Amino acid sequence: MNLSEISNVIEQRKDQYLEQLFTLLRQKSISAQNIGIRDCSRLLKSMMEDIGINTRLIETDGHPVVYGEIIKDPDAFTLLIYGHYDVQPPDPLDEWLSPPFEPTIRNGKIFCRGAGDNKGQLMAQILSIKTYVDTFGELPINIKMVFEGEEESASANLPSFVEQNKELLKADLVYTSDGPMHDSGAPYVLLGVRGILYVELTAKGADWENHSGNKGNIVPNPAWTLIDLLRTMRDKNERVLIEGFYDDICKPTEKEKEIIKELPFDREQVAEKIGYKQLDMDGEAYYHKLTMEPTFNIAGFTSGYGGEGAKTIIPSQATLKMDMRLVVDQDPDDIYKKFCAHVKKHAPDIEVKHLGAMAPSRTPANQEVVDIVTKAVSESFNQKPVLQPSLGGSLPDYVWTKILGLPSVVVPYANFDEANHSPNENIGVENFFDGIKCTCHVIYRLGECAR
Amino acid sequence: MNLSEISNVIEQRKDQYLEQLFTLLRQKSISAQNIGIRDCSRLLKSMMEDIGINTRLIETDGHPVVYGEIIKDPDAFTLLIYGHYDVQPPDPLDEWLSPPFEPTIRNGKIFCRGAGDNKGQLMAQILSIKTYVDTFGELPINIKMVFEGEEESASANLPSFVEQNKELLKADLVYTSDGPMHDSGAPYVLLGVRGILYVELTAKGADWENHSGNKGNIVPNPAWTLIDLLRTMRDKNERVLIEGFYDDICKPTEKEKEIIKELPFDREQVAEKIGYKQLDMDGEAYYHKLTMEPTFNIAGFTSGYGGEGAKTIIPSQATLKMDMRLVVDQDPDDIYKKFCAHVKKHAPDIEVKHLGAMAPSRTPANQEVVDIVTKAVSESFNQKPVLQPSLGGSLPDYVWTKILGLPSVVVPYANFDEANHSPNENIGVENFFDGIKCTCHVIYRLGECAR
Repeated sequence: MNLSEISNVIEQRKDQYLEQLFTLLRQKSISAQNIGIRDCSRLLKSMMEDIGINTRLIETDGHPVVYGEIIKDPDAFTLLIYGHYDVQPPDPLDEWLSPPFEPTIRNGKIFCRGAGDNKGQLMAQILSIKTYVDTFGELPINIKMVFEGEEESASANLPSFVEQNKELLKADLVYTSDGPMHDSGAPYVLLGVRGILYVELTAKGADWENHSGNKGNIVPNPAWTLIDLLRTMRDKNERVLIEGFYDDICKPTEKEKEIIKELPFDREQVAEKIGYKQLDMDGEAYYHKLTMEPTFNIAGFTSGYGGEGAKTIIPSQATLKMDMRLVVDQDPDDIYKKFCAHVKKHAPDIEVKHLGAMAPSRTPANQEVVDIVTKAVSESFNQKPVLQPSLGGSLPDYVWTKILGLPSVVVPYANFDEANHSPNENIGVENFFDGIKCTCHVIYRLGECAR
Repeated sequence: MNLSEISNVIEQRKDQYLEQLFTLLRQKSISAQNIGIRDCSRLLKSMMEDIGINTRLIETDGHPVVYGEIIKDPDAFTLLIYGHYDVQPPDPLDEWLSPPFEPTIRNGKIFCRGAGDNKGQLMAQILSIKTYVDTFGELPINIKMVFEGEEESASANLPSFVEQNKELLKADLVYTSDGPMHDSGAPYVLLGVRGILYVELTAKGADWENHSGNKGNIVPNPAWTLIDLLRTMRDKNERVLIEGFYDDICKPTEKEKEIIKELPFDREQVAEKIGYKQLDMDGEAYYHKLTMEPTFNIAGFTSGYGGEGAKTIIPSQATLKMDMRLVVDQDPDDIYKKFCAHVKKHAPDIEVKHLGAMAPSRTPANQEVVDIVTKAVSESFNQKPVLQPSLGGSLPDYVWTKILGLPSVVVPYANFDEANHSPNENIGVENFFDGIKCTCHVIYRLGECAR
């Protein structure tokens, strides 16, 4: 058995594999609008069965999960692969250079809604099974696959699906390929995500806007009410003052600190990418803030007049949108309770609305499986991957780490400019093939160690 | 000489006086759009000349002032009457029940753009001269009249006009009839206005909105920058912390305190009018806050996402609109300097824009002319007027009190529901005639004392 055979097999089958991806891409599957979802789940199931994966649709309260498995030996190492077959709506349509559901190759990239997010990466995972089996005769480990149809709708039913299928989903490692590779083009191995709590606060004043002259000092101003609350929530050094907000945060391990120190960082490149030339921090501070610290962000503040020039009013309402990115082991339900208690104490008339939440996740970096995956990715891409303890953003990764108690790694295959959620979404043709190869390498190395 | 003769003369001339008002109302004079202004100034001049007022147009950098005078004796008491012949644009047109420039009587009210604001009141003042002279043969005092054509465009050239014509405008009292009478229907004698300083603050973060997950803690949030500045500007007891903000405020005199205590106040009625049932203050606090205290109002706060649901962004900009109502002797230029110095010290990157300013004014309540006017108004309406030391809102009254150093009173003639600046603007037919009568009474009583 020689890993280079994998590349040879892929090389010979490029047209065939592309055609299979195109078939899946042409099938619409817009979860938010419930367009084509059922058809796509059935198509995916039949494609997986053709490859020899035992597949079935498992119903949820929303769109079905396509579940597949190849169980070699119940006691063998089991890799659970997660992905999603639903896509974002294609709007705005007039910005697409080719039809959004007709895969089109230009400049070495496949343009189609879902190409990068997530059908191209999901298909790479499925086709890696075919490639591996056809090359080596059989898999060295058990494979389970969970492809959900609601990822673009906040994975509304994924947690309950996982809760209800703990036995079925028993595994040793969860493996996700979603999102883009590192900006530098290097592969990524991500060990977790930040969680999120999104709230909306509404302060009300009078029943309508009043004139700021005739009524100034008489009618309360809801913008000030919100600001007076905010000043009790965060000090000028940006420390959150809500009681217990920081209580459950785990300090980074020595291993994580080491990893953070070694992460590649080009201040000027980052500054350019975020549009903030004045950015003044080193790599260590940057990655520590991004992966180990929670945020307390104002996503929107809207009150009164926002047009040109002057309008002399006292606003009747002020609305604040806030998202808090949470880090292990902050629990969004607990933080929400603490947040509400704080509001109740300081500004009981302000209304708080819960707009969404997701727990954080982090897989300890000092586990053997992390080393194995990192090695496999490194070999496959012939380039050292960027190993990061957490994404700054949020994914429902906690369903694996919290509900199933499993280690979980995210290894994205899409190019950094995949334009997911945007017009002209794409995946590099070579990214697709590299993804097939990388999954084969991961299976191979996991099988080696599990022997 | 018997004052009741005044009423008799008016009674006999009602149709004639209404026709004269209608002629003026039919002539458009929209200053903001420069529609009909010149024609209106000429029409007004000729109507005043017909009555025997020496009238001329005085050019400014904008629209002309119509200046009229009847000088009986250079040493006699001189009353300067101020008003404006320009009107607001009539939009939205489709909400008018009758054409906006065709005066129409319905339910005892004259509907027309400018009916209440200010042609109806201005015409009452002009026709009072005719009524007085025709009744008693001659005026007992000197009369000067300043009718500007830019009041609805922030009186842009009135201060320089007054500065340049100090000698011409020499007088003993300035008398203005503009705005509505008291909500209760009682007449009003107003002794001043609050000033205003309107500023816009802009805080900038990155050059574009960033994702709150991938960039949270990295990119600065301009909404927080503004809020952190605001917390240095005002404490939680609503006291403004800008150095020197309160320095020049004159305490109310004993007389003003007495007046405030006596002002009519119906908590429930006020609460209903402003749409704030929870209003919890007595009349003394209400009028003190409204007339003697400055405001520090947020008229608008706009940053980031304000639509439905959640959007996970870090705003790239935050904009704050603030108006400060100022009381004597706060100087808007001085307050602006102090405001800017504060911003420069605490948040030097925040941009401050000056959007407008007007100085406050207040005529001391313990002057004889105030008593005379109050008495005349009381007799004319057969009802005690509401004497208020200041309006909560702002008018360019300081040009008389500050630049000319004169006492100035505002006695509105329009009904409280005149709908100025709105569709279906109107003035009560009787309000118009009462206005003629009231000005006659004022002239009479001033003449009596000046004798």
